[in-house]
Order: sequence, then structure tokens, then C-alpha cells
Amino acid sequence: MSTHVFDQAIALTPDGDHRFRGATSPAYANMVGPFGGITAATVLNAVMQHPSLLGEPLSLTINYCAAVADGAFTVTALPMRTNRSTQHWTVAVTQPGADGSEDAVVTATVVTAVRRDTWGLDDETMPEVQKPDQVQPVPMPEFSAWLKRYEMRPIEGSVPPVWDGGGTHSRTRLWLRDAEPRQLDLAGITGYADAFFPRVWLRRARFVPAGTVSMTVYFHAGGAELARCPVGTWVLGQARAQAFRNGFFDQTAQLWSENGRILVTTHQIVYYKE
Amino acid sequence: MSTHVFDQAIALTPDGDHRFRGATSPAYANMVGPFGGITAATVLNAVMQHPSLLGEPLSLTINYCAAVADGAFTVTALPMRTNRSTQHWTVAVTQPGADGSEDAVVTATVVTAVRRDTWGLDDETMPEVQKPDQVQPVPMPEFSAWLKRYEMRPIEGSVPPVWDGGGTHSRTRLWLRDAEPRQLDLAGITGYADAFFPRVWLRRARFVPAGTVSMTVYFHAGGAELARCPVGTWVLGQARAQAFRNGFFDQTAQLWSENGRILVTTHQIVYYKE
Repeated sequence: MSTHVFDQAIALTPDGDHRFRGATSPAYANMVGPFGGITAATVLNAVMQHPSLLGEPLSLTINYCAAVADGAFTVTALPMRTNRSTQHWTVAVTQPGADGSEDAVVTATVVTAVRRDTWGLDDETMPEVQKPDQVQPVPMPEFSAWLKRYEMRPIEGSVPPVWDGGGTHSRTRLWLRDAEPRQLDLAGITGYADAFFPRVWLRRARFVPAGTVSMTVYFHAGGAELARCPVGTWVLGQARAQAFRNGFFDQTAQLWSENGRILVTTHQIVYYKE
Repeated sequence: MSTHVFDQAIALTPDGDHRFRGATSPAYANMVGPFGGITAATVLNAVMQHPSLLGEPLSLTINYCAAVADGAFTVTALPMRTNRSTQHWTVAVTQPGADGSEDAVVTATVVTAVRRDTWGLDDETMPEVQKPDQVQPVPMPEFSAWLKRYEMRPIEGSVPPVWDGGGTHSRTRLWLRDAEPRQLDLAGITGYADAFFPRVWLRRARFVPAGTVSMTVYFHAGGAELARCPVGTWVLGQARAQAFRNGFFDQTAQLWSENGRILVTTHQIVYYKE
């Protein structure tokens, strides 16, 4: 097994048909429970380790039902339907509840597919931005252990330096990579997909409690393409909101490889307190 | 019960704990199986009719596992986790398989939530376009019964008049409403979310077999807001792709009310043949 802290955090042990055991990693702790991106990567990992897997991940939707408690959890990954070239998975992460029952803390669906050679193009091309070495590293706020696992160089829309209510837009662009160099792969970019801070902070320049309720990731790059990226490569991330209303906002985001190929498009619906 | 053809198509009969019976409607038939939007609205309807419902739909992800056969189906809607203000649902649509078992033809997750008064704004504002009465109705291709259920006035990016391989972009803007006037509601706009023809047709000006694999809908408007829209109102839809690769493309789309409020943001990952 890889000794990279990310691989240790998403590691699972088979525990009977369709079941895997895992545990939260202090290295990816968030303010309450683990970083959502590490939980999403763990869900993906369960599907990718399943002996019945067909193809590789095409889409993932993860719903954060409750804070994952520190410690052990069970991931159940059920192949609900297998077709010639696609496969549909329903996944749950459970932990023991107060009365000894297994309570769902995460629900998810994953579609895996066999990738084929076809016509293709990127319609959302990478924005023209400064190269990573032209961007000053900005010290990240150190609320949470997981932030130390990533290196981020914000180009636009970084965490507001002052909470003065003066926000004017919700768009962040940043270069992103693992702080400890790691080969890009499907689990890794799933973590990247959740690495943006809450859009409401930027839009309002105001600190408001917020947390992701549901995230969807579409994988445009397959494992073979990601494996061709050099270790330590940067990924360009762009995220913005479309609407804030009644305690929930959405986020729409893209990740591109350093050489300008779109890797992932991803969306979230996020709770905010006020 | 409403006698509107849409309400008849999504109608469900309770059939024991968490189970509902329904049947496909010839009025919403697509080339193979029903229009995906009517299936999504039916899934939403199961959750909305469930006696344990908390709040109303905030997000829906539906995975189209297999063509829904004409005839009867069962919808199972399980409340997996109920919190103070959010509730997480796992849903499946099943039909009898070849060996008498119940096979999943659709899997889905739904999050419902209690909406609260908070600060809010639309960051993706409605584009400036011609009013519906300034746009010529364009006769829709009549592949499928379901297209007759909607009135569409394309402003930009309509189905290519000639398949000459000359496509240059993937963006459609159109005014959309039910052909038989109907009050906007959450089930109705779920159908609208899937009303865009495949982006690959527009981008390539080439007919290529295509079908939605997974769709996510984020509801920014609640039922009360939709109920205030007049019957027969138009909705502005905008859809575009971000990437086409290896047999799958994504679609990112928005729906606005006629008076410019964002109602829905929605995303799909779609199979295309070549």
C-alpha cells in the first residue's frame, strides 16, 4: 500500500460481501468530522476495490447526512445494475448509532463506465491565468488539519482578508496540488473537487457557518490519462455560485490539468446559516 | 387528483411501507422508454407523497440504469436519515426482470429540507433575451410523444436544421412551458430540467445516439414561490456542455422564471455513441 497520507486516509479493508471497514484520519480532519473530499474519495475507493467493478468512475453523487464521528465506519457498495458498458452503484457509509443500530452518515450513488475512443473536445476551456510559479503562495487559514494536506495558490477570489461585508462576486480560481507530492488519480481529484471554501464567505466577505449537503463529480479524465500527469503537477480549480437562497447555495466548479485539459466538472448544494 | 396529463403521468398509489406503484404514460413516451424528465418527476413525487416527509426537495440525483419498460413499475423511497431541518432519501424504481426478480431501472437520492428566511441573491442572473412573444415558435422535431407536451421557443442553439457537421458551440437558450397550461411546481420544473436535447447534436451539427446517464437538480425555489407564478407562465432555460470525451459529455443548465428569478440549476452526464 502507498504510504502517502491520502492513501492511508482512504484505505479500506474488505469485510464480507459488498462491505468494507475504514476509519477517519486525523490528517484530514475538518472543523467537525473529516474533510468532505476525503469521505468522497473513500466512497469512490470502495467502488474501485469492489471485485465486481466494471470500468471506472464516470460520476459520483455523495450526500452528507450527518457529521462522520472520529473513528471506525463501514462502507457498503452495492452494484445495483450492470450493463454492457456502464454499472450503477448505491453506497452508504454507516457508523454505530446511539441504540446500537448502524446509522447512515453518508449516502451516495456512483456510475462506472468503460471508456471508449470517440470524438471529443473541451467546450469550457481553461481560463488564461498566471502560471503556478508566478502566483504567490498565500498562507491558508489554519482552521483544519486537512488544509495542510494541500498546497493552494489563489489567483482570484481567495478567502477574504477582512470580513467587512464587501464581497462582490463568488468566483475563485486557484492552483492546487497535494502538499506531499502524489500521482494524480481518480480518488485524488475527487478530494480536489471539494477543496473550495464556501462561496458564501467570498460573496459576502462575511463569515457564516456553512457545510456541503450534496456534491456531484463528473470525471472527464480516466485513470490512464491522470497517470500520464507528472507527480507534483498542479491542477487549476475554478468555482462559483449561481444562487443563494433560503439557507442553501450551489457551487459549480471545474478542474483542469496544468496543460489545460478539463479533468472534472463538479457541483454542490451547500447549507449556510443566515 | 389533477386531470392534467403531467399529473396523471407521475401519479403513484401507495403499496405498503415506502413503496408506491406507478405506470408509464404513453403521453410522455420517448424513443426508447419514457422521457427522463417524467421519470425524475415521478421519483420526486414518491418522496413528496411519503408520510415521513420533512420539508421539500432541495436536491435530486437520478441515475438512469436501464430503459424503463412500458407498463407498471414500483418506486421505493427510503428515508435514510432525518435531521432537524434536512432529510436524506434513497429511491429506486424497479420492474420485474426476466427471472421474476425486481430489477432496478432507476436509482436516485433526494435531499429534502425546511426552507428558512436568510440573506440571498442570484449570482447567475437571467441573460437578456427577447420576450417569449417576440420569439417565433419553431416546429419541434416529432421523434417522441413527450415533445408534444411542451411548448418551446428557441432563442439560440435550437436543433440544427441541417446535420452538416458545422456546429460551433453547445449553448441553447429557450422559453419553455407546458403545452397544456399547468401551475409551476417542484415536480413540473424537474421535468423541465431534462427538456434540453443532447448537447452533442448542437456542438457537432451531427445526429449521434445519446442518452442521459445521471442528472442532478438543485431546487432554488420552493413550492410556495412556484405557486405564486401565474398558470401558463414561461420559464427561460439555458444549457451548455463543458466537455465531451470518451463517449460521455456533461450538461450544465439553469431555469429562470419569466420575471428573472433563478428556479433550478441542473447538471447531467450523458452517453453519446461516437
